[in-house]
Amino acid sequence: MQQRSEETRTRILEAAVKQFSINGYNAASVDNICEQAGVSKGAFYHHFKTKQDVFLALLDGWLQTFDQAIEASRGRPMPETFQMMTEYFPYIFESASENLPMFLEFLQQASRDEKVWQASVAPYRRYHRHFAALIKKGIAEGSFVDVNPDLAARLIVSTAMGLLLQSLLDPEGAKWDKVARDTVQLMMTSLVKA
Amino acid sequence: MQQRSEETRTRILEAAVKQFSINGYNAASVDNICEQAGVSKGAFYHHFKTKQDVFLALLDGWLQTFDQAIEASRGRPMPETFQMMTEYFPYIFESASENLPMFLEFLQQASRDEKVWQASVAPYRRYHRHFAALIKKGIAEGSFVDVNPDLAARLIVSTAMGLLLQSLLDPEGAKWDKVARDTVQLMMTSLVKA
Repeated sequence: MQQRSEETRTRILEAAVKQFSINGYNAASVDNICEQAGVSKGAFYHHFKTKQDVFLALLDGWLQTFDQAIEASRGRPMPETFQMMTEYFPYIFESASENLPMFLEFLQQASRDEKVWQASVAPYRRYHRHFAALIKKGIAEGSFVDVNPDLAARLIVSTAMGLLLQSLLDPEGAKWDKVARDTVQLMMTSLVKA
Repeated sequence: MQQRSEETRTRILEAAVKQFSINGYNAASVDNICEQAGVSKGAFYHHFKTKQDVFLALLDGWLQTFDQAIEASRGRPMPETFQMMTEYFPYIFESASENLPMFLEFLQQASRDEKVWQASVAPYRRYHRHFAALIKKGIAEGSFVDVNPDLAARLIVSTAMGLLLQSLLDPEGAKWDKVARDTVQLMMTSLVKA
């Protein structure tokens, strides 16, 4: 029973990605999503209160990709921590390309809807704080040069967002996961003490 | 007569920004735009062939902000060139915040429409080539360390895109033009020869 319920939830989420991608968030309806998923409206409302709830669950799922990359490398010296994160890049960029229209939809909705905005901005502020803490730690442990942790974290988060955006806009323009790895190398060159 | 025609064109563009922002690109119609601008459909079609034409003209106008920043600093030593660009940042970030929903609409449309995609990707590829050329020049003139120009240019373009995106998503999160200036400083620290 538990398992079947999980499957229904997954089917609703997958159907919602398709509907949001094809028609955009505003045009997609709970009816469309149910039809695409082959589930009843009763089943839908068992799992989600509103269309927006589904949307926020998708955003949350997408963000977990990043959280995994960050979590996996806890407790190591800083240069190694950053190195380990790059191993998740192929996975992150693949998941980005699969969710291209969704990702842009998040940004679009965030600019129009307070609740979506909160859900989008809170994690990204969290990443910023997380990287600032990592850099501070790197300086304290003696592996990083003495930079402004807040500013260096901004540089990292900005670069990550910019690379993701480019990979979405111009998937054929470069091997983005490789560019991202090389970019981390380049940043490390200036962060790590000679 | 020439002047009046220019005024009409400007009014159409301003009305289109409003309509695209309120309703989104897909829902906005030439009728809405004409009504908002207070111009006849004849006047509209004198200036633009389609709604998409207006959209591309807006994209083009937005990109000129960046081109100005890049052009203004031609022919100087590289560290100074980068320094001079930062003087345009307050203007660039202000124009970004005014055009927030438009900017996201561009990304959204680019993912769905080949012509908009071409118009969005071509300039950004151009910026990448331009920065790679600047860095190559900086290395040749002896002011920059020996980095991979292509990669360093990716870092610059990614950071710029990421900062713009953050300034749109989270306008209150930081003084973005200052963060951008400080980020250029930080990058210069690792690019400029000691």
